[in-house]
Amino acid sequence: MKILQVDFPSPGPFGAEMTEMMQGLAESIAKEPGLIWKLWTENAETGEAGGIYCFENLETLNAYKEMHAARLEKMGVRDLRFKIFDANVALSKIDRFPGL
Amino acid sequence: MKILQVDFPSPGPFGAEMTEMMQGLAESIAKEPGLIWKLWTENAETGEAGGIYCFENLETLNAYKEMHAARLEKMGVRDLRFKIFDANVALSKIDRFPGL
Repeated sequence: MKILQVDFPSPGPFGAEMTEMMQGLAESIAKEPGLIWKLWTENAETGEAGGIYCFENLETLNAYKEMHAARLEKMGVRDLRFKIFDANVALSKIDRFPGL
Repeated sequence: MKILQVDFPSPGPFGAEMTEMMQGLAESIAKEPGLIWKLWTENAETGEAGGIYCFENLETLNAYKEMHAARLEKMGVRDLRFKIFDANVALSKIDRFPGL
């Protein structure tokens, strides 16, 4: 299991408009090989968006990361920031995280 | 509900050693006012660690953030990076995120 943390400056849309515009993308992400879950993040005040993803392994994470970086760059996104992490499962369970 | 994303350079410990050393901290974090959950993140290869937190609201998030920043600085952590986000619940549910 591997965690992908993504954030980038975004002019929007945010909130309900984002939900509407990105629904098809969310449905396609749900079908990505190796994806366990994605938490969608957004901040209308600071003009940022991103996501926290959990993948089955580093191979499926990296395949998605390359595809997603190219897609976001095509959408005009700059200053994309990716971080790859392991989850510490034992500590996260103590702190009630339900996604592991 | 508000999301706090934290990451910083870390010399370790990682993995099982981190679990052992940080268990008391995780237990204290579980009791923080407003905390719904925390996902603990770590990367022994890049020398980074952090966490993704879900708080009930911005007030409890900010109170924790100030206290945690001071605590990490005392532990010698530098280049601490905090990001505050809303979760897009509808899109996250499409992508099977179980923590909202």
